[in-house]
Amino acid sequence: MPVLPPATTLRVDREPIHLRLARSALVRDGAGVADVRGWFDEFARRAYTDVRRIPLSALKSWHTDPATGDIRHDLSKFFVVQGIDVAVPGGPVAHWRQPIIHQPEIGILGIIAKEFDGVLHFLMQAKVEPGNGNGLQLSPTVQATRSNYTRVHNGRAVPYLDYFRHPGMHRVIGDVRQSEQGSWFYRKRNRNMVVEVTGDVEVLDGFRWLTLGQIHALLSADDLVNMDARTVLSCLPFAGAGVHRVLSGGGAIRESLIRACDETAGSLHTTGEVLSWITEMRCGLDVETRRIPLNEVTGWHRTEDAIVHESGRFFSVIGVGVSAGGREVAHWTQPMIEPVGTGLIGLLVQDIGGVLHVLVQARVEPGYLDVVELGPTVQCIPGNHEMLPPGDRPRFLPDFLDAPADQIHFDTVLSEEGGRFFHALNRYMIVETSRGAELEHRAFRWIAVHQLVALLRHSHYLSVQARSMLACLHSLIT
Amino acid sequence: MPVLPPATTLRVDREPIHLRLARSALVRDGAGVADVRGWFDEFARRAYTDVRRIPLSALKSWHTDPATGDIRHDLSKFFVVQGIDVAVPGGPVAHWRQPIIHQPEIGILGIIAKEFDGVLHFLMQAKVEPGNGNGLQLSPTVQATRSNYTRVHNGRAVPYLDYFRHPGMHRVIGDVRQSEQGSWFYRKRNRNMVVEVTGDVEVLDGFRWLTLGQIHALLSADDLVNMDARTVLSCLPFAGAGVHRVLSGGGAIRESLIRACDETAGSLHTTGEVLSWITEMRCGLDVETRRIPLNEVTGWHRTEDAIVHESGRFFSVIGVGVSAGGREVAHWTQPMIEPVGTGLIGLLVQDIGGVLHVLVQARVEPGYLDVVELGPTVQCIPGNHEMLPPGDRPRFLPDFLDAPADQIHFDTVLSEEGGRFFHALNRYMIVETSRGAELEHRAFRWIAVHQLVALLRHSHYLSVQARSMLACLHSLIT
Repeated sequence: MPVLPPATTLRVDREPIHLRLARSALVRDGAGVADVRGWFDEFARRAYTDVRRIPLSALKSWHTDPATGDIRHDLSKFFVVQGIDVAVPGGPVAHWRQPIIHQPEIGILGIIAKEFDGVLHFLMQAKVEPGNGNGLQLSPTVQATRSNYTRVHNGRAVPYLDYFRHPGMHRVIGDVRQSEQGSWFYRKRNRNMVVEVTGDVEVLDGFRWLTLGQIHALLSADDLVNMDARTVLSCLPFAGAGVHRVLSGGGAIRESLIRACDETAGSLHTTGEVLSWITEMRCGLDVETRRIPLNEVTGWHRTEDAIVHESGRFFSVIGVGVSAGGREVAHWTQPMIEPVGTGLIGLLVQDIGGVLHVLVQARVEPGYLDVVELGPTVQCIPGNHEMLPPGDRPRFLPDFLDAPADQIHFDTVLSEEGGRFFHALNRYMIVETSRGAELEHRAFRWIAVHQLVALLRHSHYLSVQARSMLACLHSLIT
Repeated sequence: MPVLPPATTLRVDREPIHLRLARSALVRDGAGVADVRGWFDEFARRAYTDVRRIPLSALKSWHTDPATGDIRHDLSKFFVVQGIDVAVPGGPVAHWRQPIIHQPEIGILGIIAKEFDGVLHFLMQAKVEPGNGNGLQLSPTVQATRSNYTRVHNGRAVPYLDYFRHPGMHRVIGDVRQSEQGSWFYRKRNRNMVVEVTGDVEVLDGFRWLTLGQIHALLSADDLVNMDARTVLSCLPFAGAGVHRVLSGGGAIRESLIRACDETAGSLHTTGEVLSWITEMRCGLDVETRRIPLNEVTGWHRTEDAIVHESGRFFSVIGVGVSAGGREVAHWTQPMIEPVGTGLIGLLVQDIGGVLHVLVQARVEPGYLDVVELGPTVQCIPGNHEMLPPGDRPRFLPDFLDAPADQIHFDTVLSEEGGRFFHALNRYMIVETSRGAELEHRAFRWIAVHQLVALLRHSHYLSVQARSMLACLHSLIT
C-alpha cells in the first residue's frame, strides 16, 4: 500500500496568491473613509469607552514590587514594566538605562480572508484601544495576547480565535512571528497570521468584510487603520511573477511599484548581497542588553504620577483608567508608555532601473532579539533634535521635512499599538528622491520591494515601523 | 549625471552558482582519502601537537570565580564555563540545570573558492584541534574566534582572514550566522562564509585546493572532515533550477537527490506550510533559559578533576593541556566538554514523488536563540537509553540501529568542534525508509532537500547537526 501520495500531488510554491491579492487591491469602491467612519460612529453608540490618565500610584490590581520597583499585575504575569541596561560599544550612545515593557508571551494578530465573487475580502474589526486618541480604529479580525485567549483574566472568549489556533484546517496565507517596538518592548513578538477560509463565516457586530483595495484607501486617512492591522497586512505575500498582468497604468511611481512586485524584475543588490550586508551589520555590533530592576534605572525618576526621563524627553510611563460599556461592562487600570511628541517615520523611495527600491536602515533597538532589524529610512521624534546642530540630527530628516509636495506620495499620521502606548502618533511619509546610490552608507541600503516581501516570510528582518510603512507603500498600488 | 546604473544593470538571483557547484561535485579524482591522509602525515612531521587531560585544578591562566564558581580565563573574556537553568513546561524534562559554555563572540568560519580550468575549488586546511582524537582534520580556510582575529591572545595573524573581513571586495557565495551545539553552547553563533576570488591566492603550508567532489569523497572517511568544514559546506547554495542538466545517472537515491536539488521540483509541503509549522512549534513552547552561577548547578558536582553529572551521564567538563610545535611553539591549557559515549545522528530519507525528502525534527536545545531549530531525525547517545523501556527511547532510533545494509546510504563517525569538545564523536547515518507520511508527528516533517537549502540562507533554522548531515547528504551526489 503506498503510504505517500503519487508524484502528481507534489506541490510547488506557485499558487498565485499574489495575483489574487493584486485583484483584491483593484476593488476599492463601496467602503470609503466616510462610510467607515459612519460605521464606527454607529458602533460607538452601542459601545462606549472612557479612558482617563491616572497617577501610577492609583493603579488598581497592579503593584510596585518593593524590592525591584518593577510594576506588575497582581495576578497574571502578562506584562511587567521593568528596567533595561543597554551597552552598544561604538554606538552614538554607548551605554544607557531605561524602563521597558517585558511581555514574553506571543500573542496572535490574525486576519480571516475569504473570497466573494472571486475577490478576496478580509474580515476587519472596529476596535477601541485605550491608547488611541480617537476611539475606534480598523483592526485585524483577532488581536489577542495569550492571556486573552487562555482567558486568565476571565474575559469573554475571543471571537474567531479558533481559525488561528487550528490553522491547519484552513489555507494559511501568512504565518510568521514579528517583533514590535524594540525601544519600548523587550523582545516582544506577535504571531502575524492570515488564513483563508471557504466555509460560511458569521459576521459579528463590529466586524466587516473589506477588499484589499478598500483597506488601502482607508490607510491614507489619519489615524484610522491600527498598527496591528498594518503589520498583518505587510506580511501578505503580495510579490511574485506576473503582477503587471493584473495591475497596470497609473502614475510613474505606481508603474514602478507594480514592476517591483515582480520578483523576477531584479534589484540593485542581489538578495545574497543583502543577506550578507545584514550578517555584517549583525556581526559588527556587540549590543548587550540586560534586564534590571526598574529602581536601578538611572536618569529616570518616578513621581506620584509617572516615570519620566530627567531631560523630559523620550517617553513616560503613565497610568490610565478605562471604562468600557456595551454588551459587557468592564473597568480596569493599567500602566502605559506615552511618548513625548509626535514621531516621523519616513521612507525614501526611488525608481532604479524601472523597479521601485526603498532605502532601509539597519537599526539597533535594545528590545530586538537579534541585534538589528531593517527599519525605514528615518525614524525619530523631530522635536528631540531641533536644538542640535544639523550634523547631529538624524540622517535624511531634511529629505522629509523639506520635501517638495510633488515628491510626497504618502503622508498620514497613524497610531502605534493602542494597548500599551498612549497617544503614540507617528507621521508616516513616503518621499521619492532622485539622489541615488550615494545615499548608501554603512547602515543604509536600497532594497527592491519584492526583496522586502521575501524577507517578511521570516522573523527578525523588518521592524514594526518598516512593516507599517510597507503596508502604506503597498496601498499606492490601489 | 545619472547617479544610478541604467536599467540593464539590474541584477537577479539567477547566477547559476548551483550549476557551478554541481560541476565541481563531479570532479573527484586526484585527491583520495589515502592521498589526503598522506598529506596530513607529511604535514604532521613538521608540526606536532600533544594533548593531555589534566585536572581542572591544574588549569593555568584560568581561574574559578570564588563567588560564582564560573571558570574564566584570567585575561580575555572569550569563553566562560558557567551554569544555565532551563524550564520547558510540558516538555519531557520540565526543568533542569547544567554547565554550559558561554562565548558571546561571533567567530568566522570561511572557505575561499576559486575557479581553476572552469571548475570551482575550495581552499582547505589541515588543522589540529585539541579535542580531535586523531590529530589533523580537513578544515575551512579560516576558523577564527574574534579573540583570534583581533589578536587579544597575541597569537600570530590568522592567514587569509582579510578575504572574509572585507568580503565586499570578492564575490560572496554564502554569508550567514549559524548556531552551534545548543546543549553545550549558550547562544553561540559563527559566521559561515564562502567567498570566491579571482586573483592569485598563495597556497601556504598546510593548505590545499580541493574540488567539491574531492571533499565529498573525503566526507565518507571516518573522522577526516571537521565540523567547521561541514557547516560551511552545508551553506553552499547548491539547489536551483536545472541541476539535472549537469548531473544525472547513478543509483535511485542519487537520481532522487538530484531532482531534490531543483527548487522547481516541488515538495510534499509548500514552503509556506513548513514556515507555518516552524512558527507553530516556536509559539507552542515556553522555553525559559537563564544563565546562573556554575556553583548553583544542582545535579552536578565538581571533583579535583572534572565537573560530572551525578548519574555519570551526559557530559563532563574537563581540563586539557596542549603543546604544539612546528614553525611556532605554543603551550596552553583550557577547559573542554567531554561527552559520555559516542552519539548517533540519523537522518531518514525517502523519495516522495521522485524528489528526495528528509525527516527533520523541530528540536529544543537550551542554547538556541529562538526556541527550536530543525535537527536530524534522531540525535542522541544511544548508551544513555539502553536501560529504558522501548517506548521511552528516542523515536526512530531503531530505524537506524536495525537498518538493513542496503538502506544505509551514509555511515561515518565524525567529530564535533575540536576547540571546545574533547573526543566528541557521532555516528552520522543516512537511512532510506519506505515508511511514509505516517512518520510525521507534531515535531517531525518531511522536507525536500531544496527547501532546506533555501532555509540555510537564514539564521536560526537548521541546527549544526542538521547542517553537518546536509553536507553528508549532498556528498551522495558525487
